[in-house]
Amino acid sequence: MQINGIPYRTIWLHPAQPNCVQIIDQRWLPHKLVIEDLNTLEDIATAIRDMHVRGAPLIGSAAAYGMYLALVNADRQSDWKNLLDNSAMTLMATRPTAVNLAFGIDKVMAVTGHLSEKEDLVKAALKAANQITEESVAHCYSIGTHGFVLIKDILRKKPKDNQTINILTHCNAGWLACIDYGTATSPIYLAHEQGVDVHVWVDETRPRNQGARITAYELLQHGIPHTIITDNTGGHLMQHGLVDMIIVGTDRTTRTGDVANKIGTYLKALAAYDNGVPFYVAAPSSSIDWNIRDGVAEIAIEERNAEEVKMIQGWDGKEIKQVLLTPQDSPAINYAFDVTPARLISGLITERGICEANELDLTAMFPEFRE
Amino acid sequence: MQINGIPYRTIWLHPAQPNCVQIIDQRWLPHKLVIEDLNTLEDIATAIRDMHVRGAPLIGSAAAYGMYLALVNADRQSDWKNLLDNSAMTLMATRPTAVNLAFGIDKVMAVTGHLSEKEDLVKAALKAANQITEESVAHCYSIGTHGFVLIKDILRKKPKDNQTINILTHCNAGWLACIDYGTATSPIYLAHEQGVDVHVWVDETRPRNQGARITAYELLQHGIPHTIITDNTGGHLMQHGLVDMIIVGTDRTTRTGDVANKIGTYLKALAAYDNGVPFYVAAPSSSIDWNIRDGVAEIAIEERNAEEVKMIQGWDGKEIKQVLLTPQDSPAINYAFDVTPARLISGLITERGICEANELDLTAMFPEFRE
Repeated sequence: MQINGIPYRTIWLHPAQPNCVQIIDQRWLPHKLVIEDLNTLEDIATAIRDMHVRGAPLIGSAAAYGMYLALVNADRQSDWKNLLDNSAMTLMATRPTAVNLAFGIDKVMAVTGHLSEKEDLVKAALKAANQITEESVAHCYSIGTHGFVLIKDILRKKPKDNQTINILTHCNAGWLACIDYGTATSPIYLAHEQGVDVHVWVDETRPRNQGARITAYELLQHGIPHTIITDNTGGHLMQHGLVDMIIVGTDRTTRTGDVANKIGTYLKALAAYDNGVPFYVAAPSSSIDWNIRDGVAEIAIEERNAEEVKMIQGWDGKEIKQVLLTPQDSPAINYAFDVTPARLISGLITERGICEANELDLTAMFPEFRE
Repeated sequence: MQINGIPYRTIWLHPAQPNCVQIIDQRWLPHKLVIEDLNTLEDIATAIRDMHVRGAPLIGSAAAYGMYLALVNADRQSDWKNLLDNSAMTLMATRPTAVNLAFGIDKVMAVTGHLSEKEDLVKAALKAANQITEESVAHCYSIGTHGFVLIKDILRKKPKDNQTINILTHCNAGWLACIDYGTATSPIYLAHEQGVDVHVWVDETRPRNQGARITAYELLQHGIPHTIITDNTGGHLMQHGLVDMIIVGTDRTTRTGDVANKIGTYLKALAAYDNGVPFYVAAPSSSIDWNIRDGVAEIAIEERNAEEVKMIQGWDGKEIKQVLLTPQDSPAINYAFDVTPARLISGLITERGICEANELDLTAMFPEFRE
């Protein structure tokens, strides 16, 4: 999608140096557009852990490129099995909740495990990383086309004198969380392109404000009408008929349709349910963990540094500053995700189509994962 | 309650200058303790509008002292009816949602309307303002004793090896929102004083962060264990059994038990209901608007400046700084309150005792308001 009128992706190989991966370092958005060079596995691990890149699909691609860089930089005489295992472990430790991490790593492991020559390993890993990346773009686009059908359905039922579709989203499941188009935002971009009057309520999404910083930035850059709200506001808007639908992303989806997504998603789902507002999750199949059934009981929720709650970063007019929001001596805790039970979800928008959030419907759409 | 070991109230007459009202200017908490002198009606109006003072009971007292200052500063030959009406209008315009504003003003109007001599008017107004203030302290204390019974009930049902009571609160309905003790915090202070092991989950409460700034500050100063969380976090905690009860305040309560409180309260009530967590509202009768029945339809929700969402204030290590959180050109909207329907509320803790959130129970406790 576009930034300052120029089309970008979130991750790409350096055009002149194939051993370098480039990313948009998202920590400085929306105040600065910083492109970062990543040359090693450790660079990639840091970029994922410290959220230079974030968003489930983007993390998956970054991890795959991380495996590639580990191989590129390895000695020809390496113990390849050992190296691959260690690289995978390093990457897996960066963000415990996102299933896409494992997805990206496993894809590289699957195509390299039987190889023994460095050239072959490097080539296979790069091919896999590129493939995951292109597949992710294609899946996002498909999610857009399926989600757009939902938007058109809602539009048909709206009065002729009020054809603005108000869509609320939480966190950033936009193109900056993916490679391009986004998951939750893909139907929005498509609707906008097709001339539908969409307006997005952007949850700021504390503590890291991915909504206020990143979703707002990408919508603004692409010309989509939007309004930033605090995370507390969605319930009030829904009570007053100001939200036509909610679309959020997912970091991990169970085979029963429970969804682990950014902390606070569950609260919005409760309000949507209470007010009869359709609540959809844009869930590419790469986010589905087919091994688990009970999201609340089984998904490990990442606890991040409490400083992310106590401090905040913003633009003081001259530079990016960190400020303290709380008494210095008050403790804080920082859970990064929560789990929205399937019963509150109107449907999952996958790359293959829309299905209800339950095992029967999900495995009907993905029969290869039937037990 | 105590700050740096010294007992304070939030508003008081200057000990040496009876024509001056002093307050803690809460805009600088927790980073600085600033005492402000208010000498005129306009000073009071500004202090309420710009939230030097905030919290429903404190606003009620401040408004009454505002009426007093208007009279103190008036010419002896004033048209008193006109002056009182204009002063009331100025004060009423400052914060549209809080019913306590009207409560404080009406009390002064009731005792001054029939008077015509400046001395008598000033004396009556001051007496009324002092009375509202002392009554508020007494009501807060009573709410504490009634709420403490609930805490003891929960304690009895907890396993003997886990006797920590985890109470979640939203915004600041603490002593800094009142005159002393607080409403929602009063049972907590009392339980702590009685040796109960209480721990408070403090919602930061965006956009103005009254939780992270003020509730955390007062709990820290008084030695109550607490942890600051983002507003997104409560649902997750409740899903995992980490919240024993919720107590919040109210800015306006309908005679049917609907509660207008800080934006986001409704979302916490939904999560409490979904997880079987008791959800109580500390509701002094001064917060009850006996004229309305449908909170969502009838309570005007204050829309504040969008800059409060886009900017945030914090401590940069040397001074208090404002920083921008969003793209400069993205719009934001700032609703200050939402309405929690009575059906989600376990009970109202009033100064007379605890009742269910419905008209029958509420008017049984306050029979003078039966129709």
